[in-house]
Amino acid sequence: MVKTVCVVGIGLIGGSIACGLRKHHWCESVIGIDAHQSVIHEAMQLNVIDAGYTSVDDCPVIPDVVVIAVPVLKVADVFQQLKPWIDKCLAITDVSSTKQSVIDDFNRVFPESQINCFVPGHPIAGREQSGVKAAVDNLFDARKVILTPTEQTNMDSVKLVTDMWEQLGANVEQLDSRDHDQILAATSHLPHALAFSLVHCLSTQSHTDEIFRYAAGGFADFTRIASSDPVIWRDICLANREELLGALSHFDTSLQQLKSSLEAGDGSALEAIFVEAKNARDKYTDSQ
Amino acid sequence: MVKTVCVVGIGLIGGSIACGLRKHHWCESVIGIDAHQSVIHEAMQLNVIDAGYTSVDDCPVIPDVVVIAVPVLKVADVFQQLKPWIDKCLAITDVSSTKQSVIDDFNRVFPESQINCFVPGHPIAGREQSGVKAAVDNLFDARKVILTPTEQTNMDSVKLVTDMWEQLGANVEQLDSRDHDQILAATSHLPHALAFSLVHCLSTQSHTDEIFRYAAGGFADFTRIASSDPVIWRDICLANREELLGALSHFDTSLQQLKSSLEAGDGSALEAIFVEAKNARDKYTDSQ
Repeated sequence: MVKTVCVVGIGLIGGSIACGLRKHHWCESVIGIDAHQSVIHEAMQLNVIDAGYTSVDDCPVIPDVVVIAVPVLKVADVFQQLKPWIDKCLAITDVSSTKQSVIDDFNRVFPESQINCFVPGHPIAGREQSGVKAAVDNLFDARKVILTPTEQTNMDSVKLVTDMWEQLGANVEQLDSRDHDQILAATSHLPHALAFSLVHCLSTQSHTDEIFRYAAGGFADFTRIASSDPVIWRDICLANREELLGALSHFDTSLQQLKSSLEAGDGSALEAIFVEAKNARDKYTDSQ
Repeated sequence: MVKTVCVVGIGLIGGSIACGLRKHHWCESVIGIDAHQSVIHEAMQLNVIDAGYTSVDDCPVIPDVVVIAVPVLKVADVFQQLKPWIDKCLAITDVSSTKQSVIDDFNRVFPESQINCFVPGHPIAGREQSGVKAAVDNLFDARKVILTPTEQTNMDSVKLVTDMWEQLGANVEQLDSRDHDQILAATSHLPHALAFSLVHCLSTQSHTDEIFRYAAGGFADFTRIASSDPVIWRDICLANREELLGALSHFDTSLQQLKSSLEAGDGSALEAIFVEAKNARDKYTDSQ
């Protein structure tokens, strides 16, 4: 049995992993690390972790497993802090929404590393709320978790991380890191960019209050992801910049097609776009 | 008490009005008109209407109230068919998502009309599904209905239509038709155009199946409105073309700002956009 898991970054995802692991007794104890003492305090009060510290250096034991759950551009800093543990942990994994940037960070911090215990991972799960107060022990139930091991990744570490996620109810799959980044740019990072842009655009207009006053249910659904954490999403966009710019460019082509059809008053062309979109989405929801 | 209501177009909205009125006994009977005999048949079987015909000409009585619930570019045709009734009904109303185009249509069909019984209306309600089988008697419960009467509109007709919607549980408000069209372009027509464009863009890429396979909950919410009826939305876009093109142009400015910040790797600028969007949306949801 795994003795100690250390979760670095106790927000929605880190907190949900911590309390899920404790609920399912996957390990003997869960230690939380978070730069903010107030977060550690809140996590203890909410019974999310067994013990907590504001830095890796303060942690009195070397954990078997480390889960890095900080905004993606902070992952490199955490790798630096983990240097004393790198040869002693069974597995180190992360939850970042982009994978190639994290692998690059790892290789920069540990350039000599041959076969190693780092298993890049990404749970496709979330909630509108953020922070440890939003953490729930069933967040990953029936959700996909994508692992993107490289040629250097220790297979025993992959097995251990897979087992951890399966204990939390997740379905674990493996992908190439670049395929992951391209797919997620299209299905997650691009929609977030559009939702943020739409609400930003409406909030900077002269009659903003009236606009929001008459918004309907479809608007609430469409813009839900614009309530996501701005810092986390700033980092994701920057970490997956090339793929996201590519996805935005693809999108722009489709949007221009719609605009030209509208300008020309071409109902058949508009309808063709809408029919193709509806069919694709209906096919997607039917498969869920 | 109102004797007969005639609903022209028995889809999701027309069907929901019909069965809501019957449930609340607002009138003695509800007659449905739909060009498709199969829809009349289905509406009778589902107990949505008391009687049904495939054309206004076949209707054996002149109703007190007519509700036009066809795609917006078909409304002018219905006005033509209503010519024999125009001076005999207490109120004629519609449910179209654009209002100025419908008022223009009415004035074209009835150019001599002074004070008249036509009350332009728009219930801000809907469901992902369409068609009479999706009709429910509580669709308008606690939803806003916007009426946009003109200087020619008979006030008694406005009162009657207001009473009808209130019986269905809706909150009725009045707006100027052009304000309505501008506001709805921003909060409804633009988001629909973006959702259709996004799914269209993803469905035309080489690895579409993989993309949809890894789409998460946020994606389902964001794209829900892309499952809307293509014909209805083709008509709405065309009927509100100028306002929608204006909204698309506003949106483009915001999206370009995001793209430039991303290209420049400017994290502060990205974060500022995301923070402004999140604050606006959180304020909006708090007010709901």
